[in-house]
This record gives sequence, C-alpha cells and structure tokens, in this order.
Amino acid sequence: MQKRIYLDNNATTMLDPSILPLMQPYFCEKFGNPNSLHKYGTETHPAIQEAIEKLYNGINAADSDDIVITGCATESNNWVLKGVYFDEILKKGKKHIVTTEVEHPAIGATCSFLESLGVEVTRLPINAQGTITAEQVAEVIREDTALVSVMWANNETGLIFPIEEIGKICRQKGVLFHTDAVQAIGKILVDVQKANVDLLSFSAHKFHGPKGIGGLYIRKGVELTPLLHGGEHMRGRRSGTLNVPYIIAMGEAMRLANEYLDFELSAVRKMRDYLEDKLLEIKDVFVVGTRENRVPNTTLISVRGIEGEAMLWDLNKAGIAASTGSACASEDLEANPVMVAIGADKELAHTAIRISLSRFNTQEEIDYTIEVFKKAVERLRNISSSYDA
Amino acid sequence: MQKRIYLDNNATTMLDPSILPLMQPYFCEKFGNPNSLHKYGTETHPAIQEAIEKLYNGINAADSDDIVITGCATESNNWVLKGVYFDEILKKGKKHIVTTEVEHPAIGATCSFLESLGVEVTRLPINAQGTITAEQVAEVIREDTALVSVMWANNETGLIFPIEEIGKICRQKGVLFHTDAVQAIGKILVDVQKANVDLLSFSAHKFHGPKGIGGLYIRKGVELTPLLHGGEHMRGRRSGTLNVPYIIAMGEAMRLANEYLDFELSAVRKMRDYLEDKLLEIKDVFVVGTRENRVPNTTLISVRGIEGEAMLWDLNKAGIAASTGSACASEDLEANPVMVAIGADKELAHTAIRISLSRFNTQEEIDYTIEVFKKAVERLRNISSSYDA
Repeated sequence: MQKRIYLDNNATTMLDPSILPLMQPYFCEKFGNPNSLHKYGTETHPAIQEAIEKLYNGINAADSDDIVITGCATESNNWVLKGVYFDEILKKGKKHIVTTEVEHPAIGATCSFLESLGVEVTRLPINAQGTITAEQVAEVIREDTALVSVMWANNETGLIFPIEEIGKICRQKGVLFHTDAVQAIGKILVDVQKANVDLLSFSAHKFHGPKGIGGLYIRKGVELTPLLHGGEHMRGRRSGTLNVPYIIAMGEAMRLANEYLDFELSAVRKMRDYLEDKLLEIKDVFVVGTRENRVPNTTLISVRGIEGEAMLWDLNKAGIAASTGSACASEDLEANPVMVAIGADKELAHTAIRISLSRFNTQEEIDYTIEVFKKAVERLRNISSSYDA
Repeated sequence: MQKRIYLDNNATTMLDPSILPLMQPYFCEKFGNPNSLHKYGTETHPAIQEAIEKLYNGINAADSDDIVITGCATESNNWVLKGVYFDEILKKGKKHIVTTEVEHPAIGATCSFLESLGVEVTRLPINAQGTITAEQVAEVIREDTALVSVMWANNETGLIFPIEEIGKICRQKGVLFHTDAVQAIGKILVDVQKANVDLLSFSAHKFHGPKGIGGLYIRKGVELTPLLHGGEHMRGRRSGTLNVPYIIAMGEAMRLANEYLDFELSAVRKMRDYLEDKLLEIKDVFVVGTRENRVPNTTLISVRGIEGEAMLWDLNKAGIAASTGSACASEDLEANPVMVAIGADKELAHTAIRISLSRFNTQEEIDYTIEVFKKAVERLRNISSSYDA
C-alpha cells in the first residue's frame, strides 16, 4: 500500500478521531433544532453549552464577551469588514482600514471590495523578517481609521505578528482591532485578554475540527451589524439553524488544541526543526523567517532551480502531501505572494514549498520525507534548465 | 422507555441514516482540502462532483447554471438580497424590492436592514387563502424594482405560492426573481426551468441532510456580488474551504428527496390527511388552508381556547414534538404571524399548532398522536378560562 504522509496542516487538518463519536448521536438521534421548545430541541442544549464553554476557555474570553458560531473563518472575516463598513464607515463617517499585504484572501479580497465602495485601505508591506511592526501600524492610523485587521500568524510562512503590541496601540488610539487567528490556534497560546483584541476569527478545520464551521470572538460592547440577518439565533448576531454536531466537534477540537499545546511547542516543533535542519543541508536551499518567531509546525522552504509545483508533484508521487502556499489559491500557479513581499527574486518566488506538521505526524514520516525530498531535489535539478550546480 | 415521535419536520429533519456512512470517510481519512493539488485534495473530487450532479438533477438546473454551496439557506437568502443591493441598487440606481409579509426572517429581517439603507420594500399581504397571487406581484412591480423574492411554500402553513406564474411576470417585466424553496424541496416537485426562477435558496437540513449547509441556484448570466469574498472557491462566487462531508450528504439527501417524492405525495400525504381528519372531529378546531394547495406533510391547526404553548407542552410530555410555528422564532411567544395575516382574531392567533410529518413517520405514531392530542384538548379546555364549551 502506498504511504500517506500528510504535511499540509496549514491548508486543513484531519478531524481528531476522538471527536467523531461525540458528533455521531446528533445526526440521527438527537437531531432536533436547538431553537425548538420540545425535547428534541432542548436535549441538544447541554452539549452545545459545554462546547461553547470550551471555546471560551480556549481563547480565554470573558463571560461577558461574545463568541459567535459562523460557517467558517471566511465568514467571520467578511463579517468583521462588512460590519465595520456599515457601523463605523457608513454610520460614523470614518473611511479608512489598516491591514497587511499578506492577509488571507478572505481579508484581502474583501478589502478590495470595500475599496470599490470608496473605503480607503492601507495594506502594510511586510519587512525583511516577513512580518510587520506595531510602529508601522501606529504610523498609518488616522483620525478616520475604522479598523485595524492583522493576522496572528501567516498561513504561508508561519511567522507570528506582534498582536499584543498592535492591540495596545489600537486601544490607545481608540481604533477597533481584529485579528485573523486561524493559523495561531492550536500552535501558540491565543489569549484574547492578553492580546488586546476586539475581534478574533477562527476556523475549526485548522485545529483538527471539521470543515464548514468557525467562530468570531467579539469583545463586550462591540457593535457589529450582522452579515447573516434573520431569526434570533446567537442573540440576534448570526442567524441560521445551529450545526449541532459541528459545534460539539469544534468545542472539543478547541479543548484538545489547548491540551496538546505543550506537545505542539515541544514534540512537533522538534520534528519540524529536525526536518528543516536536514533539508537545509541541501545546497542552495532557503527557509523563510527565523524559527523563534514562527509557529512550531511550519516551514516555508525554497529550493533554487526547482519550481514549487514540480517538487510538489514528486512528493505527491511518493505519498507526501505538501503545498506551494495557501490552498485557497493553489489552483493558480502564481508566485508565492509572501515570498515576493519579502523580496525574493522572481525565480525564487516560484520555488517555495510549505511543509506544515501536526500532532499526528511521526518521526518515521519525517525521516521518509527527508529521504524523498533529497532524491527529488537531485532528480529535478538534473533536468532543470535554470539551475547550474 | 418514553415514546419519541417527531412531527416537527418543517423546523429540521433527521439526517437520513443511509447518508451517515457516506460522509464518514471524509472526516478522518479523505480529509484533504479539495483545493489542494496533492492526493489528499484530489481524492475528494469524485464524491464532490457526484454530489453536485445530484443537486443539479434534483432541481433540474441546466449545466450552464450555477449551484453554489453555502452554509445555510439563511446565508443564501442574505446573499441574494445584499448582492442585489450592490448590483442592482447601488450600481444601477434601482431602489425597490417586492416580497411578502410571511417570508422567513432571513428574508424579512434582511429586507428591514436594507430599508435602513434607503431601499424601498413592498411586503405583499397574504389573502384569505393564505397565499399571494401573481396579479398582486404584477401590480406593485415598478420601473425601479430590483428583485421579487417570494417563498415557494410557507414554513408555518405549508401553503404553496404560485411561483411559476410569478416567475413569468418577472421575466416579462425584466425583474430578477428569487424564491426561498426551503420548505418545498422534498415535498413537491421543484424544477427551476418550469418555475422561471433566477435564484433559488435551499437548505439540506429540511430534506434529511445535515444542518449547516445549503445552496443557492443562480441562473446562467445572473451576476451576484459575493457575500463571502475571499479565495477562488466556487468559481469565485463563494469563498471558504469546502465542507466535504456535508456536501456529499446534501447531494445524497437531494437524490433521496426526489426518489421519495412520490411516497411523500401519496403515503405521507395520506397520513397527514388522516391525522387532520381525526383532529377536525374535535369541536372548535380549525386548519389553515386547503389541502389541495398545501405541501403534503404540514398541518397548521388551531384549537380554540388553548394556547399553542400549552398544547405543545402536553404533546411534549407524551413524547411528541410539534411546534407553534417557525422554530427560528419559537423562543418568543408572539402571535403566529401567518395566523394574524389571514385574519385570525387575536385569541385564535395564539392557538396554532404546526404538525409536520416526514417519510420516517408511521401510522402507529399518527394513531398515538391523535389519542394524545384529543386527551390534551379535553384536559386543557377543562382548565381554560377563555373556553366555554
């Protein structure tokens, strides 16, 4: 049987197998609508309540804050930007949003849409270290700035942004602060109190929960016009019948993400570092960003002379799943935007391979990957027209 | 063991147990992101493709039309109204939307939101038969009408609206036509070609699929600004990582809905009619709407002298799940809006009980329900202050 080694955990993760049995009874037995007054409805409440408590604990939200269940982080991100458009821009006359050049498309494309409506967007460029500084944010905040939105960790590089410092600045200046924490949860500590964030997006399928459910943390007192108007679900903040099995799953996935956080920061990091050390032994290979400022599971590695897609293909043939960058756009073969932003030359920008581990990977898998990777580099460089060893 | 009889299928349905095993492999084995280029991604494609074909077949969409997967019908409905706001109202200078007084809150509340932005909304009142006529629509369409949105079947009464005729009028007048078909699919034939609709919302959990997934049919050539901007998912129309297990489940649920349609129109209808006949033997009991113009599974029944909630409580104690109306708002004890619209007096408007069957109900359950219902009426009228026999 062919090997199956999954090293693309920043694109999506396996549902933790221990979660499946928890969801199961809510498909064909306790299948009621939680809003219904009868037993089929009310018998779902304890498990939903427990799941939501796990979410609050997971990010250290206060009881008076809101965590609203959404369909995905893309919905959470769209909600934040479009809500702010109605509440701060249309109603209060502000007109400026600050973000970065390397956000997920759910932020980037939504900002472009708001620009088409007249909103002014400042997209901060990342520096040579692959991140931005809080000072950069401070410099561009204006009187009419409605929102600062900066990702907690980058999906491509795994680099961590200075959320706590940016949060402080936003609070000083009285500007709403949102972070897309999709790539941070389960990899580093995410504490909304420490981080001074007003709004935080997350997605279950990035931390071993199911695809198709996410959430938005909303600090107490923050108004946000709904993206999904309708019934009185979620205290009127987000309508739509509750996806009971997935809510239960996301709660447990969040609990596990925190339970395994030490393991992620030690064992997973150790495997990632080992893999990276071994691959860096290859000539003309570069890794983006210092390890100290990266989430513990991610390596974005560039192999001069080899197109990322060619490398991906060789790995795939050997049963190894990696990525050239964000899966959200991996069907078009553009230069990796983060590589371009940190100043990689045009050729190098097409050579990035992202390897992202999880707690389900083993040292054996890593050893096999190193072996396959080295062979692939040799084979591909031999047939490369652009690489001269 | 207490009986469990579920007669609230307009609120939500049980996942068809035959669907569960089809979803299963996509949680912990074939868990890749369909947008990924490696095997974990591509191995999900055949099942997704098959599921989407089932959706096309289920509503008779043309290959050149779009069916876009959404998180729920609430998202689909919000998308239509807010998309039209940007495309037809902001860009083309139109300013009017036509709908009815009895739409689901996902339409009703979203229209109210658009009114706060200056959109003019005409909410057609329903007539004594509980529906609207195509002529009513024709009369209110204006030069600047951007959209007509009328539900296919009402969630409370099960009454069917003249979608085909309304569609013809909209096409003649060059106005976009949307229908919320959430309560129609699986109960009556839904054919987007015959019905002349441009946009159609549906939700899997109303036809024995899972909660938390739905869709929007978009006729070829209809532009609609995305509600969820982001990556290139769904041909750029709706971003967010695909919920693979639920897409597979929704496709199969749609196939089954059509396979069982004859059964619904014969066996389920027969059970419903039998139940209704028996309950109508009780004195001072009224059913809303003629059977001929109702979906085959629904009865909205009013028992003079008994509050709907009291009746619900007695049924629930005996293990029977019914509703006072829409579960989306059933936590507030307001008068049933459809009852009010058809002119019920204030007292009667609080007495409505909705009983909605499915293909999983049995004649034995119906017999037991009749017995319990009759006893409950007797008990509650004996202690009623407002009923004098």
